[in-house]
Formats: sequence, structure tokens, C-alpha cells
Amino acid sequence: MHKFDRLQYLPLMLFQLVLMALFFVFVRYGGDKHHDLRGFEGTHVMIFVGFGFLMTFLKKYAYSALGFNWFLAAVVIQWAFLCQNFYHMENNKIMATKETILEADIMAATVLITFGALLGIASGLQLLFIAIIEVAIACANFYLVGDIFKAADVGGSIAIHAFGAYFGLGASFAMRPQKKATSDVPATTVPTVDLNGPTYVSDVTAMIGSLFLWIYWPCFNSALTTTNAEYQRAVINTYLSLASATVTTFVMSSVVSKHHGKLDMVHIQNSTLAGGVAIGSVCNMHVMPGGAIAIGIGAGLLSVLGYRFLTPLLEKCGIRDTCGVNNLHGMPGIYSGLLSVLFAALATSGEYGEDLAAVFGAMGGENGRTAASQALNQLYATLATMVIATAGGFVTGLIAKLGCLSPLKDKEHYDDDVNWELP
Amino acid sequence: MHKFDRLQYLPLMLFQLVLMALFFVFVRYGGDKHHDLRGFEGTHVMIFVGFGFLMTFLKKYAYSALGFNWFLAAVVIQWAFLCQNFYHMENNKIMATKETILEADIMAATVLITFGALLGIASGLQLLFIAIIEVAIACANFYLVGDIFKAADVGGSIAIHAFGAYFGLGASFAMRPQKKATSDVPATTVPTVDLNGPTYVSDVTAMIGSLFLWIYWPCFNSALTTTNAEYQRAVINTYLSLASATVTTFVMSSVVSKHHGKLDMVHIQNSTLAGGVAIGSVCNMHVMPGGAIAIGIGAGLLSVLGYRFLTPLLEKCGIRDTCGVNNLHGMPGIYSGLLSVLFAALATSGEYGEDLAAVFGAMGGENGRTAASQALNQLYATLATMVIATAGGFVTGLIAKLGCLSPLKDKEHYDDDVNWELP
Amino acid sequence: MHKFDRLQYLPLMLFQLVLMALFFVFVRYGGDKHHDLRGFEGTHVMIFVGFGFLMTFLKKYAYSALGFNWFLAAVVIQWAFLCQNFYHMENNKIMATKETILEADIMAATVLITFGALLGIASGLQLLFIAIIEVAIACANFYLVGDIFKAADVGGSIAIHAFGAYFGLGASFAMRPQKKATSDVPATTVPTVDLNGPTYVSDVTAMIGSLFLWIYWPCFNSALTTTNAEYQRAVINTYLSLASATVTTFVMSSVVSKHHGKLDMVHIQNSTLAGGVAIGSVCNMHVMPGGAIAIGIGAGLLSVLGYRFLTPLLEKCGIRDTCGVNNLHGMPGIYSGLLSVLFAALATSGEYGEDLAAVFGAMGGENGRTAASQALNQLYATLATMVIATAGGFVTGLIAKLGCLSPLKDKEHYDDDVNWELP
Repeated sequence: MHKFDRLQYLPLMLFQLVLMALFFVFVRYGGDKHHDLRGFEGTHVMIFVGFGFLMTFLKKYAYSALGFNWFLAAVVIQWAFLCQNFYHMENNKIMATKETILEADIMAATVLITFGALLGIASGLQLLFIAIIEVAIACANFYLVGDIFKAADVGGSIAIHAFGAYFGLGASFAMRPQKKATSDVPATTVPTVDLNGPTYVSDVTAMIGSLFLWIYWPCFNSALTTTNAEYQRAVINTYLSLASATVTTFVMSSVVSKHHGKLDMVHIQNSTLAGGVAIGSVCNMHVMPGGAIAIGIGAGLLSVLGYRFLTPLLEKCGIRDTCGVNNLHGMPGIYSGLLSVLFAALATSGEYGEDLAAVFGAMGGENGRTAASQALNQLYATLATMVIATAGGFVTGLIAKLGCLSPLKDKEHYDDDVNWELP
Repeated sequence: MHKFDRLQYLPLMLFQLVLMALFFVFVRYGGDKHHDLRGFEGTHVMIFVGFGFLMTFLKKYAYSALGFNWFLAAVVIQWAFLCQNFYHMENNKIMATKETILEADIMAATVLITFGALLGIASGLQLLFIAIIEVAIACANFYLVGDIFKAADVGGSIAIHAFGAYFGLGASFAMRPQKKATSDVPATTVPTVDLNGPTYVSDVTAMIGSLFLWIYWPCFNSALTTTNAEYQRAVINTYLSLASATVTTFVMSSVVSKHHGKLDMVHIQNSTLAGGVAIGSVCNMHVMPGGAIAIGIGAGLLSVLGYRFLTPLLEKCGIRDTCGVNNLHGMPGIYSGLLSVLFAALATSGEYGEDLAAVFGAMGGENGRTAASQALNQLYATLATMVIATAGGFVTGLIAKLGCLSPLKDKEHYDDDVNWELP
Repeated sequence: MHKFDRLQYLPLMLFQLVLMALFFVFVRYGGDKHHDLRGFEGTHVMIFVGFGFLMTFLKKYAYSALGFNWFLAAVVIQWAFLCQNFYHMENNKIMATKETILEADIMAATVLITFGALLGIASGLQLLFIAIIEVAIACANFYLVGDIFKAADVGGSIAIHAFGAYFGLGASFAMRPQKKATSDVPATTVPTVDLNGPTYVSDVTAMIGSLFLWIYWPCFNSALTTTNAEYQRAVINTYLSLASATVTTFVMSSVVSKHHGKLDMVHIQNSTLAGGVAIGSVCNMHVMPGGAIAIGIGAGLLSVLGYRFLTPLLEKCGIRDTCGVNNLHGMPGIYSGLLSVLFAALATSGEYGEDLAAVFGAMGGENGRTAASQALNQLYATLATMVIATAGGFVTGLIAKLGCLSPLKDKEHYDDDVNWELP
């Protein structure tokens, strides 16, 4: 610890002042659009309580999980507001409404998913640096997905969940631990306690986050729907997919158990939520209630198997993923993207009626796209997101290793003591 | 532990697949009925966070409390959706709306109340078996109460709370511990730690559940109201009854204290909520704001005295009731049922105006019931619910003792170690 | 402990019965005014979960924090309902609506802020006594601010936050510890554990409160707005002010740190919220989104510096403030009052249009006030609130020292063991 540590976050104060100036110049009140906006409060709970508490499962990293979740999100909601609306200015002005701040909240999820991959292995400054770069790239990708490819992604499984996960994995790979010659390690090293694990109580507080995420996921997925029928489909499908993913998670956790069929809290806290991600891009489509259940079953399977078999494999390749975001947000996000290809290909105006343009913006009207063309664009959106996220995360991770961002030493990982006054 | 334990939950996976198939065959999107539905989000928080965390008070059963609460509810909301709407199909199809999934959520409360009675003494498989049978019976009873007796029960104190509690007590009695010849016990038995109790921290996490249940109870009770005046009465009455029950609970907890007037967390966590149950069946009626306060005072008294004097008595009779659901849901539910008899008898079209048919469906119109007839039907509904719940619970409990449902040994009670990988 | 301890709360039962009688005489259902009321559920979460859990940070006072928060609030919402509506009766009757019970909920915040100052140093009976007196005075002051001065204070930063904080500090000063002759203390005193501090887990549970307060603050501040544009401004400004206060809090907590720039949980739990208080009185005004960010930065600065330097100073003067409510509610409340003077002075009908009368009730119409006159009244309201709160709190605190209210001895401070059966 050097003596200027107390000034470590001053660059953030400068960034905050720049944000203030940009708001003064560009942002005005947007009046009374979207008065009946649904989903804001629920999404807000997910971002700050849901993500925050979900990450308190580590035995000595709860302050950092809650604190940096809050710090990052508070920076990001302001910055994302500007980055997102930069693409939709009128007369060089951004009109602030409850809807546009909801969209900023949703973008915060992207950064917090990335945080989940890097939990305990990146310093506060690294996280803040990564968050600021990531938002700029994610908002550009969001524009690409929604406005160029005109892909349907109402629950953000492609542009938010998959993006955040693969950005995080890319950064994690860039920041992978350096191999050391084993002979360098003195034989008398005192064995350290492994902080990368839970206590009985920390797994209970993590459930606060997990349950609030689960509860408000139908709000999240339906928040940006427009018609009532579309809204109801989004709520019902998300609800059913979450329920069946939860049942599947419990069953599979026992099946793949290491000890006599005992349940694993990691699966319960995370894979139960994969049903919400998997249905995200298609939740407002005509997937049928039975189809929503089927999608959730697939998500539960995919996620539990990922935690059990894939995460240890990735770790051997140097890709640490503390919260297993690949299994909760990454693979279920791709799965949702591929489902959106399928259901776009199946969409007919006979089935959707007037809702067709609400769900697939580019298919409405006389010169609208064909279903096949929409399906292709869904695929492009998914692939582009994966490439941009992984590459962006990797490059950002490389830059984040610079000494000025105070990277952590191995023994400082997963430890609140680095950043916090502890009782 | 035998070697096939890891397949123990596979029957649930089969059940999940059957549910999926039934949804494919019978369930369609219901379009845009009840767009302005109130109460869904609050009820959803109560089911998953409220009930889940309330039951974390045991020192080594928090994972099971939270986990099985979630597992059970995820199964039940799908199954209850089908069982409930089976009685109201159109052209052999069930129309899914946000309202019908709210009703499924509400039915989950019934099962979770039963879980409260059996907390720590039933195995996971037993709980799942009991839940599936209970839902079928509870939905039939719900149809009997609402559609045959046409009883008013907007907050579900009769058909949800009392039903869940007495089903649980019936099952608990069927699963009562077998008396052993004391001579069989070797004199040198190592005394085991009593796991049927709280720690300082577990009582704090239980308060998360308790407070969220309390906060959203006005949502729950008013969720299925139709007119605005009815809705406002339901919210105001529930709010006031909860407040006065809370004050009464604190006072009475001190009065009946075993040690110098000290408060007991069991009362605070539970009896405070009895005001919500007690007002449930009558919350949309003209009970007067002062009457709502009086009802809450009665509920607090009844519940604290029940915890202090009745629960130990029942336990001596072999009826274990870990969470004391008889004091929180059972007796206050009957109390609410009897209040509904009273207020039905007092109902006049002069007082209710156009709301009469909204509150008492069968009293509207020219050929509507008299107040006396409605009162009698309220009584029938309460009595029928008690008989069906108790008998149904008893028989279900007897079946649940079969060996294939892995009943617990005494030393496995209240212990997460049976089901979970612990840190 | 004397033998009548178990009857200690009986006066509260009498008070509850009096409340019931008053409700029977004066309160009727208010029909269907304000059907679309926003903000009730969020405010309700803040009062019971937010304030309750925020105060669980002490290592052995979590039961009392949660319990007395609940007990006090349950008494106060009934009593405040009467006190507030006493000034607005029609034909000697109070019409209960969801809006009037929301206002009672908001008034509960005042008492809970005062509780924060006295946390761990006042007995249960003292707190209840103080609460009942405080509500009567606070409602009179609320009437003075809103109906006599006709000051704009939509988020209650003047009449709720500043009032509650200075009432608490006044009472705390009245109840300050008596100086003892040091020679009286025997040299062999066993050093007691200092209970006025957190544990690792208690700081995590306190974050539950902190985050829910933060999340629902936009609900709270906008709950009593009327037009849609006013509502949207209130939400957006509060959201931005909270975000920038949060960023500022993290940066400043590191800057003023005692140890190498480490973050202090006290700041994170509290000063992050100061942005919500600071924007409160002006959140529905045209402060500009950039202005809201600026206000939040000021609030974060003020609050962290207050915790670091002012609170220890006050403590030396005998003014204990366990939760630091002066830094979270007091100074930010005055700051908000002064901002309301400024923005009232700047208000023009050109900028506000038809909203002018919605924001500043007395400025609408032909005979409305000038901006200068409104600004002056904002100042009067702020000053009057400070004087009435401080004096009222001081006198109430003096009375609360009477022996019949069981004041605590020094060794009983911050200790749940005084009031609770502990596991």
C-alpha cells in the first residue's frame, strides 16, 4: 500500500464531473411519454439488490460484492444513459423519461454480469475502468442489434446477458494468472485459507439476491413491451420458463452431485435463473406456454451441466469465472439467440396479427422483411454480439492489466481486507 | 445413504415433463383480460422471499427452508395453474393471463403453509409428494368454496390459509413420532445438539421473510378485487389490521413472557402477520376502519396465546408444528371465516350499493341470496374447508410414510446435512 | 429487573384501544379518490424493511433495531393517520383512502429517523413515548409547512427528514450521559465489550436496508406528485441525485479514510442515500438533470464529511447520534430546504407552464404569490421546522428521562439482552 491510495478513486470524481457537464449540455426533461411504464421498480431491485446480494456468496468478499456492485452501477446508469441516447438525439438533445432511465438500468446489468466473472480477481479501479469501456462498446453493439439488424431481443438475452458474459470471459482470459516456475516458491510458504468459497451464512445472503432476481425477471423481460398482448405473453412465458428451469435445476443438481445426490447451492442460486435468460429474446413471441416450459427445462439442464463440467475446464485454460456467468448468462443467452432465429423463422402475420410489428419491428407494413430474412438477422445479431463482446473484453482486459489500475496480487484475491475497513 | 440417491428426484423430472405436455395440449395465451391487475408482484415476493426467509429461523435448516420453498413453489405454480383452471375451461382450453398465473401463485401459499408445519421433519420427497396431492385437493376445495357455496373469501383466509394449516396439521399427526420403549435407549447415548431452534443470525434472516410478508399483505388480500372502492377497502382494512395486530403482539409477547417480560422472536416473526390472515375473508367488506383495528387486536391476542400455550399442548399429542402455522394461519383463518359469517349477515344493499355483487357474488341481482343465506354459506365453506383439509392432510400424511419417499430418521430432523453440500 | 416488567407495554395496549375508538368515531372509507396512486408499495418497503434493516448494523442490537422499528411504525401509522387528517376533516369525519394511509406511512419515517439518533441508548418505553409526542408535533409542523407557509416539499426533506433528525438530536442532547466523578469508578472494573459497533455479518444485513431505501427513494419522492410531467421529473431527478451521491460517497470515503484509503461501511450504508434527501424538496422542480447530479455530488460530500468530522465533535458535546442521522437526514434536509428557496426564486410560469400550481400551490392563478414571496416562505418553513424540531425533541427528551419510562443504565446500551429472549 503506497501513500496515495486515498486518492485512488479521484479519477472517478473527475469522470462524475464530466458526466454532470454532459448532462447539463445534452439532457432535458422528456415530458410525459410512456406514463404507464411497467417494470421499472422490479428491474431496479434486480440491479441493486439482486446482482449485489447474489455475489455475496464468498466468505470474505461480501462488502466488495455489494459495494462495487453499487459503485459500478451508479457510474454506469449515468454513463449508459448518455451512450444509449447518443444514437437517438433530437436537435442534439436527449429527452430524459422514466423509460430512458429504465434502459440505463438494464444496461447496468451487462456490466454487473461481467463483474460476476471477475469477482474477487480484479481491483476496484480495474473494474471501474472495464465498466466504462464496456458500456461504450455494449451500447454500440446494442444499437447494432436493435437498429441495424433490427433483431428482436426484448429481454436482452443477446445484447445484455450474452454480451456481458462473453465480455467478462474475454477480460478474464486477458487477465489470466501468469504461470510461475514452481521452484520459485519457497518450501516454507504458510498455506493460506482458500477464500474462494462460501460460508453457511454467506450462501443464505446470496439467496436474497437470487430470489429477487427470479421474482422480478418477468418484470425485466416484459419492461420494454408495447402492446398488452405482447406484455402478457412476456410475463407468462418468463414465469413458466423460470418455474421449469427451477425444477430441472434441483433434479439435475442431485443427479450430477459429487456426494450421494446432495444438492449444490451454486446450482440452486444460479441455474434456477437460467430460465429467465433463455426465454429473454423470445418471451414476447408465440412460443406457447408449453414451449416456455420446454425452453426452461433446456436452460436448467444446460446451466447445471455447465457448472459441473465446463467451468472447471475453462479454469484449466486460465479463464476464471467466479460466479459462473457463462452458465447463467452466456450459454443461456446464446441459446435464447438461437431460439429467436427459430421463432422468427416460424412467425406469420396470421398468428401474430397486429402484434407482428410490435414484436419484429422490421416485419411490419407492406415492405416488411420476410420471416426468413428476420431469422437471418437474429442469427447475425447473436454472432456479432459474441464476437464483439469477446474481442472487446479481451482487449479491455489487456489494458486493465496496466500498473496504474492497481492489479491485485494473488494473495489479495477474494479478500475484502484490500478495500475495506473491517470490524 | 444408498447408491441411487442421486436419482431420487427423477420422478419430479417426469412430473415436469407431464406438466409440459399438459400445457402444450390445454393452455393458450389469454389475450388482454385484466390489464390493470394489481397485486401480482407483491404476491410473488411473498411466496418466494416471504415464506422462504420466514422459515430460515432454524439454526441448521436455512438451505432446506429456502431451497424446498423454491422447489415446491416452482412445481406447484405450474400444477395449481392446471388444477384451478380445469374447472373453468372454454372449449377444452385454458386461457393463460397474468390473472390466472397470479391465482396459481396464491395457491402456492397453501402448500408453503403446510410446509411450515412439517419444516425439518419431512424429507424432500415427502414434501413434494404431499404438495402435489394437496394442490389437487385444495383446488377442488377452492372450487367448492368459491363456486358451489359462492362464499366470499377474497384474501383466501378460508380456502388458502386455514386449508394449508389444517392440511399440514393432519399430515403432521399422521407422521407423528412413534413411541419407543425407553429401555431400548442405551444409557451412554451422546446427547445431540438440539437443531430445532434459532441462532442470533438466523432469527435476523427470518425477519426478512416476516417483514416482506407483512408489507405486501395488503397487495395479497386486494389482488383479486374488482371495483376500486372494494380494492381501497381491502388495502385499508388489511393495513390497519396488520398494524393493530403488530402492536398487540409486542404487548402480549411481553405479558406471557417466561423471563421478566422479555420479547420472544417467535411471536414477533409470526403473530404480527395474523392480522393479515384474520382480515382476509372480510377485508373487502364494510367492517369499518375501527373494526379492522379491532379484528387485528383479536388476531394478535389469539396468535400469541396460541404460540405460548396451545403449540406445546399439540406437540404432546404428537402434532408437531415447527413454524406454528396453527397460530399464524389456522386459528386466524377460522376466525376470519367466522367474521365473514357475521359480516355477510350484516350486509345490506343500502350500505354496499353497486359493490354488493362484487363482494358477495351470489347476492347481486333480483334473484340474489339473502344476507342470512350468504352467512350460512360462509359457515359451510369454513367448516367444509376444515374437514377436507384435516382429513386430506391426514390421509396424505399416512401415504407419505411409505419407504419409497425416504422418510427421515429422528437424528436427521432439522438438518441441512441430509440434503445439501455444506461449506 | 423488577417483577412488573411483563406489564411494561400495557400502556401501549391502552393507547391501541384508544386509537381503535377514535377510528370508530372519526374514520370512514373514502371511496375512490386517487385510484392510480403511485409509490405506496415502495414507500412501505422503505419504512419497514429499509429503516429496519439499515439499523441492524450493531453487533448485538439487531432484534431491537428490527423489532422496535416495527413496533414504533405500527403505532405511528395509526396515530399519524389521525393527527394528519385532523386538520382536514369534513363534517367531523376523516375519509380513509390509499393516499391518506400513504401519508401516514411517510410520517412514520420521521419517527424512525429520530429512532436512528437514539438507537441503543433509549429504552423501548422511552422510544414509544417519544414517538407518540413527536407525531403530534410533527403533524402540526407539517400543517404549518404545507398549509400555512404553503411551502413546496414534495419529498418531505424539510418536514420529514430534517424534522426527524433534529427532533432526535434535541432528544439525544436532553438524554446526554451524566458526567461522573472519575474517582467513583473502582479501579478493578472489568472492561466491557464495546457493543457500539458492527460485525462482518451485521454490516451485510444493514446493506439490505440501505439498498432498499436507495432503490425505492424515487418512489418516495414522487409519491405525492400529481401531474405526469411533475412525476417524471421527481423520478428522474431523484434517480440521478442518488447515483451521483453514491459515486461521490465512494470517492470521499476513500479520501477521508483513516487507513490507506480503505472504504468505510458507515459511509457506504448512509451517505449514498443523502442524494435522495438533498433532492427531496426540489425533485419536482425544474432543476435540470445536470442540476440533479450536481445536487447529489454536494450531498455525498456533505454527508461523508459530516460522518468523518462532525459526528465525533457532537458526541463530545454529549449529542450521541448512533446512526448519524444528522449526516443522512439532518444536514441534507436543510440543504434541500435551501435549494428549495433558490429554485422557488427562479421559478417562472414560462418554464413550468400549467405545472406551476402543481409544484407551488400558492403561485398558481391570478392572485398567486410571486417567486420571491414563495422563496421567502420556503425559507420560513425550513427555519421553523428546525426550531420546532430541536426544541420539541429537547423537551420530549427531558420528559422521557422520567423513571417510569425505564431509562437504560450505561451497561445496558446497545444490548438486545435487555429486551429479548436470546438464543
